[in-house]
Amino acid sequence: MSSGSALPDLNNPKAIYLAPLGGLGEIGMNMMVVIYKQKAILIDCGVMFPDPTMLGVDLIVPNIQFILENKIKIEGIVLTHGHEDHIGATAYLLEDLGYPPIYGTPFTLALIEDRLREKGVLAKAELHSLTPPTTFQVGNFKFRTIQVTHSIVDSMGLIIETPIGTLVHSGDFKIDDDPMDGRTIDEKSLMAAGKKGVLLLMSDSTNVEREGWSKSEHTVGEGIFQVFKKLKKGKIIVAVFASNIHRIQQILDTAKKFKRKVAFCGRSMHSNTETARRLGHLHFKDDQIIPASMVEDLDRDHVLILATGTQAEPRSALYRMSLNDHPEIKIHPGDTVVMSSRYIPGNEKNISHLINNLYRRGAEVIDSHMADIHASGHAHQEEQKKLIEWTRPKFFLPVHGEYRMLVKHLQLAQSAFKSTSGIVAENGDLLELTQSGIKKIRRIPSGKIFLDEGATDLHEEMLRDRKQLAHTGLVVVSLVVEKDEGKILEGPDFDIRGVNDEVDLDSLRAELLARFRELSREARGDDIEVEEEFRRVTRRFFRKANGVKPVVIPLIYEV
Amino acid sequence: MSSGSALPDLNNPKAIYLAPLGGLGEIGMNMMVVIYKQKAILIDCGVMFPDPTMLGVDLIVPNIQFILENKIKIEGIVLTHGHEDHIGATAYLLEDLGYPPIYGTPFTLALIEDRLREKGVLAKAELHSLTPPTTFQVGNFKFRTIQVTHSIVDSMGLIIETPIGTLVHSGDFKIDDDPMDGRTIDEKSLMAAGKKGVLLLMSDSTNVEREGWSKSEHTVGEGIFQVFKKLKKGKIIVAVFASNIHRIQQILDTAKKFKRKVAFCGRSMHSNTETARRLGHLHFKDDQIIPASMVEDLDRDHVLILATGTQAEPRSALYRMSLNDHPEIKIHPGDTVVMSSRYIPGNEKNISHLINNLYRRGAEVIDSHMADIHASGHAHQEEQKKLIEWTRPKFFLPVHGEYRMLVKHLQLAQSAFKSTSGIVAENGDLLELTQSGIKKIRRIPSGKIFLDEGATDLHEEMLRDRKQLAHTGLVVVSLVVEKDEGKILEGPDFDIRGVNDEVDLDSLRAELLARFRELSREARGDDIEVEEEFRRVTRRFFRKANGVKPVVIPLIYEV
Repeated sequence: MSSGSALPDLNNPKAIYLAPLGGLGEIGMNMMVVIYKQKAILIDCGVMFPDPTMLGVDLIVPNIQFILENKIKIEGIVLTHGHEDHIGATAYLLEDLGYPPIYGTPFTLALIEDRLREKGVLAKAELHSLTPPTTFQVGNFKFRTIQVTHSIVDSMGLIIETPIGTLVHSGDFKIDDDPMDGRTIDEKSLMAAGKKGVLLLMSDSTNVEREGWSKSEHTVGEGIFQVFKKLKKGKIIVAVFASNIHRIQQILDTAKKFKRKVAFCGRSMHSNTETARRLGHLHFKDDQIIPASMVEDLDRDHVLILATGTQAEPRSALYRMSLNDHPEIKIHPGDTVVMSSRYIPGNEKNISHLINNLYRRGAEVIDSHMADIHASGHAHQEEQKKLIEWTRPKFFLPVHGEYRMLVKHLQLAQSAFKSTSGIVAENGDLLELTQSGIKKIRRIPSGKIFLDEGATDLHEEMLRDRKQLAHTGLVVVSLVVEKDEGKILEGPDFDIRGVNDEVDLDSLRAELLARFRELSREARGDDIEVEEEFRRVTRRFFRKANGVKPVVIPLIYEV
Repeated sequence: MSSGSALPDLNNPKAIYLAPLGGLGEIGMNMMVVIYKQKAILIDCGVMFPDPTMLGVDLIVPNIQFILENKIKIEGIVLTHGHEDHIGATAYLLEDLGYPPIYGTPFTLALIEDRLREKGVLAKAELHSLTPPTTFQVGNFKFRTIQVTHSIVDSMGLIIETPIGTLVHSGDFKIDDDPMDGRTIDEKSLMAAGKKGVLLLMSDSTNVEREGWSKSEHTVGEGIFQVFKKLKKGKIIVAVFASNIHRIQQILDTAKKFKRKVAFCGRSMHSNTETARRLGHLHFKDDQIIPASMVEDLDRDHVLILATGTQAEPRSALYRMSLNDHPEIKIHPGDTVVMSSRYIPGNEKNISHLINNLYRRGAEVIDSHMADIHASGHAHQEEQKKLIEWTRPKFFLPVHGEYRMLVKHLQLAQSAFKSTSGIVAENGDLLELTQSGIKKIRRIPSGKIFLDEGATDLHEEMLRDRKQLAHTGLVVVSLVVEKDEGKILEGPDFDIRGVNDEVDLDSLRAELLARFRELSREARGDDIEVEEEFRRVTRRFFRKANGVKPVVIPLIYEV
């Protein structure tokens, strides 16, 4: 595997090139470029959310430099489902990608439309709505869409016929034999593809560390029923992902049985339920719903609130309630919060804080550790094996997972279907797939683009500077000097931020002046030399006083 | 409950006042002040470790302003065991507390001695070593030390006879009927105290959300044996808390059975094992141990490394190995890392990164989700109930836990011993305990002191400034003006850190100059007014260009 060398000939008619730019080696930001003769399709175009250490970062999108620099023509973006880690980067990257047509199911497209509109790129976007099973052609690729079950409605996998063989991409999936909408995974088409011959299977690795089978979404309905049954008194607040429409349906249905009116709370809860209802995925009568503003006026024993905030997002409805800062909903002693969700890794501590604050308000909190109120949307080991057995791929490429999950998924695949061979690849590995093998041929540019809320690209250096400022604080030291005589006109002055300033600044001032006067006439005239000297002295001074060297910005003006 | 009012009379001879300054409502930084007639003892004096969002914070200690302002004389510090969250603040606070005598078991004192020496306060410290069961008197308090089992050797609980009744403090404990050293919890003394009458029980809440009984440490030995048995090839690296001496003993013993030599790796691993061996808590022969520098020269199948780094601490041995950055130990494909530990909440994501990097090195990783290789040191519900049943306290105060855990522990106590009543209190609640009740009487100063590596107190404002700098970056805008004529001598100049500087600075410069010239002569002479105007213009300019307003430091010099 070479690196840094010129790009290989992507025109080889006997090879498909795969460029994972997101989702392989780290969860989130899914994006797979599938290239044949310099033309390509993109499978998914997702974001990643920053962890709490990334101060000032609002969103993370994949680096698509590889596509742009090598003038790879993207002829289509295929979005497997509507989760943000699969669609969220589209609005940011669509222009750079040259507005290729976007393919997706109706619910996925409804979600992406909102994002495109917000970013002002909807008018130029070309959207193709399709409901599996359908087929469509993009350049050299012939797609057959495959219905799959997942934690969002209208999810799909892909069978892609290419000039060198058939690829299967699972999307995110689980095998739920009894899904809420009856739309089970399209086992038949997958098996048919397997019989005809699948060259490569790319499959979701998220839950490879979980044995057995995932639970059916239906079992959650029963768990929720049992919980609600015990809660005769007080409001019930259920926190749930706003995109988990089937979960919301079950909660609405169960609320009805217990004669509780429902209020939607949180921006995405309103918009997603409205979209899902319009598209026929969600069913309820208007009179079951009350506005959040009415909640406090009603009998608490007959109210249920569906709220955003399962991950303790600071702007979410539940988070604000936990701080008694929600404009419409107050939590009272005796109320119960039901967390119908899992804790996404990295959010555990924030969620724990949230729950403690709910207890401080007097609520009890029930989560999926305490009751059967959540089911994962991702295949466990036995389901992952099934997909491999159905498709019998010649080669296997685990996708959508952290590095260790990809390793374990390849091991699993090889245990399930002995004749499969495969490879563990990460974002930035350029892979060459031929009928005889799949291999890494080089590293390509990839990585994360950190966007702040203004969508400015916070490149590495900026983030490093910011981290440094946050680690140590800042001292600006300034001096105005008369050019000819070297007379001090002003300063040294200090502007101190985030640094302990209970130090003897007069002594620092004296030291800086002394040092300035010791400098040769020539050195004094050299701003850079004076500034370096001031930086050194100031850092050493604070190191001695406080134990830590701050960032020092020296400003010397000669006038 | 009043707040902000004058402190009540702490001289009331019929009351004990309890001031929790750490450990109640949040895990870590344990410190309980027990006051009688203005004189007090401190139970534990621990630190908390910063989470990754607290950039530049090295350590967190409790705020003891309440003690100092009210001139409460601390007559003794009793350390229940040697974990950092129980002893780590002692060296930082000892001087302010007036060097009261410190009481603890030999292992606890050996650990604290090192810290006191590092901080240069050992010479003035008065250390009293005691091994339960012992009794000693501090002022009006008569202590009986109680042997308890925990995840560190030499742990104790306390029975405290006071002028108004008997208090029991559990320390951190579990009930292990078959501990490694045979030193079971002192059930007899606790039951005897219960029979005589316990006024108040303060008990460890950490594991109140876990049902049943904690596992005996002995079961971990069997789990480790089973894991090692399967690992015939390659190095074994076991990550474990360096203070968990019994765990280390079991690993050493099991390594011997499989003819693996052991290397200690990590600073605290060396010092803790040495101390534990010296005090008779750890037993091994010299020829079982090899220096880390020899590991790479030996047959990998006959080597085991005991390493620090279970929480992915950036300076730990395992962390450095995961990045292939350890000076002595390399990880090779086929090696196995065994994480004999739990994941402390907040560290999950860092630990997950660490494990992925170990897989990138070619290792397999086994953790306590996959094998029986860890046992908690804290009592589960049934053990917590036992302690309550033994001591039959009139009043109950849950300690050492997040808020929800305290709530649940009080509920548990009331279910276990009906006639107990109690209270959920948090850090900063001043409690009055009399023979007829326990109640909150007011809020007192409390909270966290954030220390950087120089042990400087990073007060709130400094942290806020730093966070702001990290969120948005910084622009320094400076201008030197001739005083009389208002002529611009230099600038406006910009110094930009952590902000996208691909903006039209000439246009900003022009706007600032125009604004300056529009100002009245009078306003121009007013530095503050000019600076405010410059800040406003600059922030607005960057907001427009980048979408985010940076921190702006305007510096105007008139010379």
